[in-house]
Parts: sequence; structure tokens; C-alpha cells
Amino acid sequence: MDGRIEKQLAFSLEIDKEKNIFRQTHLSGNGRNENDAEHSWHMAVMAYLLKEYANEKIDIAKVMLMCLIHDIVEIDAGDTYAYDTESLKTQKAREDMAKERIFSILPKEQARELIEIFDEFEACETAESKFAHAMDNLQPLILNDSNNGGDWREHNVTVEQIYGRQRKTKLGSDRLFDVTDEIIKKNIGKGNLKE
Amino acid sequence: MDGRIEKQLAFSLEIDKEKNIFRQTHLSGNGRNENDAEHSWHMAVMAYLLKEYANEKIDIAKVMLMCLIHDIVEIDAGDTYAYDTESLKTQKAREDMAKERIFSILPKEQARELIEIFDEFEACETAESKFAHAMDNLQPLILNDSNNGGDWREHNVTVEQIYGRQRKTKLGSDRLFDVTDEIIKKNIGKGNLKE
Repeated sequence: MDGRIEKQLAFSLEIDKEKNIFRQTHLSGNGRNENDAEHSWHMAVMAYLLKEYANEKIDIAKVMLMCLIHDIVEIDAGDTYAYDTESLKTQKAREDMAKERIFSILPKEQARELIEIFDEFEACETAESKFAHAMDNLQPLILNDSNNGGDWREHNVTVEQIYGRQRKTKLGSDRLFDVTDEIIKKNIGKGNLKE
Repeated sequence: MDGRIEKQLAFSLEIDKEKNIFRQTHLSGNGRNENDAEHSWHMAVMAYLLKEYANEKIDIAKVMLMCLIHDIVEIDAGDTYAYDTESLKTQKAREDMAKERIFSILPKEQARELIEIFDEFEACETAESKFAHAMDNLQPLILNDSNNGGDWREHNVTVEQIYGRQRKTKLGSDRLFDVTDEIIKKNIGKGNLKE
């Protein structure tokens, strides 16, 4: 086995740990907490299925890859809940360190390529990253809606907080934002989100 | 919400169940059993990282999508262990029924598209499907190797059985087959595979 392929397989084995990073979101059917690998898989499939609703022309292969790798840094940095204001303050520093360590397992030019894709996602300025962020929001939304808003109720999430987060969905897709808005309003009506 | 998007979101919610379909493979670090969503995510990332080793020119977006959806039928049909000869006899019939029910939740032309991709994977005749099969073999191989062949020992897997299965890896990538061969030989040496 040469050095290049050895590095690629070492990275492939390292990212297995993402399956042990659990999120606040619960699986449908009031199931257990979801992990990052499952969330990323789900986002990537949804990106493909819903690509017709992107506001701008997108390279779907790039969006899928972005969805697949966007949470790898959480292997070291842990999951930061979207409405946890304290953890959000240190999130970037923690994730930057993780990014360097984990992607550097790969051959140099591949590490650079994946870091670029990761940074592009984080910056949320390109068409692909905006659409990937829409998936990052919509995927837990449909799970949580199917569980009668259990995750929102557990964390006392407010209407203001959720609309703040869903701003990025609108950047990626006006059409999916409308659907999101419909789902949020239904959950406000049910008392699942605090006014 | 119009009928089209409603169907797409209903399908997106349905496939959440794939996270509850557990495989015989264990996570690295002698972890718990892996589920289909995690396995598919891992395969898709590996396909992207290792695409340079494909025997033929491949459309990587198609390979990634194939990896992501190839186990959706197991929501109804269950996981069939690669070395379970009894279950393998009924696998196709079970998976065909599942395929019809699950993909038909989607708008008609999208259902057709995904069924085509699924069938292409199963037939293993195109460059993309051969490479996706190589990932389907290599991903559990690296996990199992990292766990000192625990899954092979548990199921008394023979050298003949494993080389039979890895034949498809060679169709997708001679280079990755060589790596596979190296890993298998190491595990034979350790007594993890029966002669």
C-alpha cells in the first residue's frame, strides 16, 4: 500500500467517529437522537431530490459533497446546538482546530480541497453553500415536525430564534422557505414554539 | 404546499427509517452495529476521496447518489448479510417489493429516476455501479480490519467467501482490489478468516 492510499484510508477510518456524534434532533417516530453521519446522509439525499427549488443554478455534486462533509469537524469539536448561545461563541475556534487536524490526515492537495469546500459551506456566500444550508435547516425541521415539535418544546425554542435560523433557508431557496414558514406557523398554532 | 413538494417531503421523511436498519458490521473501536444510513454516508464520502482509482471514467455525482440510495429498500426488506446463503435466496423478491412501495412515494418521474439508479447499481454493469460496489465492499472491510476482523470471526467467514464477494471490487478498481487483497492476506495470517 503506498503512502497516498494509506492516508486516504486512514482518513476514511477516522471519519467513522462521526457516527458517534449525537445531535439534539430526534429521529421520526419519537426515536433516539440522530447522529451527524445520519444527518449528513439525509441532507445529501434531500439536496438531490429538492434541487429544482434552488434559487440559483447549482452544481449538485458539490452540494452533496458539502452536505456529506460539513459536520466532520464535530468529531473533535462536538455538536453545537443551533440555539445554545454560550457554545455558539466558541464554536468557530473549536471547529477551526478540528478542521486542521482531521483534514490533514489526507494527502496535502486533497486536504486543501476538502477544507475549501468546508470553508465555502461555512461562509454561505455561493449558490451551493446557500442550498446546502437550506438542507441543514430543512432536514431537522421535517423530523421535528413529525415528532410534534418535541425538540423545540424541550429546548423552549422561540419563534424569533427559529426564524433567525431559517433566514439561511431563504437564501438557498425561496420555495423551501415558504414550505418552512408553513410548517413553523402550524407548530406555533399547536403551541410547540414560544411566541 | 403543492402536491409535488408534499410527495418529496413525504419520501424524505420515510427514508429516515433507514437509520434503524442495522447491519452486521460494527463501528471502529469495537463499537455498536452500524446502520444503513451511516454505511451509505461513509460509502459516498469514500467514493469521492478514492475516485482516482476507478478502472473507468466515472460520473462521481451519479456514484455518490447510488451510494446514498442503494440501501433504501432495506427499510422494508431488512439487511441481508453478505454471507447468509438462506436469506440471499429471497433477497431480490423482498427488495423488488420494497423498491416499488418506497420510491412510489415520490412524484412519478422522480420515482422512475431513482428506481433506474437503484437497478443500475444492482445490475453492476456500468462504470459507476462497479465503483459503487467497490465502495460497498471496501467500507465494511476497513471497519472490520480496524476491529481485528471481529465480524468475520463472529460469522466464521471463509477465505473463499470473502474473495467471492470482493470480485466486484476488482470490477470497479484494480488498485483498490490490490489493497483489499493486502488487507485480506493480513487477516488470514492473523487467523481472522477461515481457510
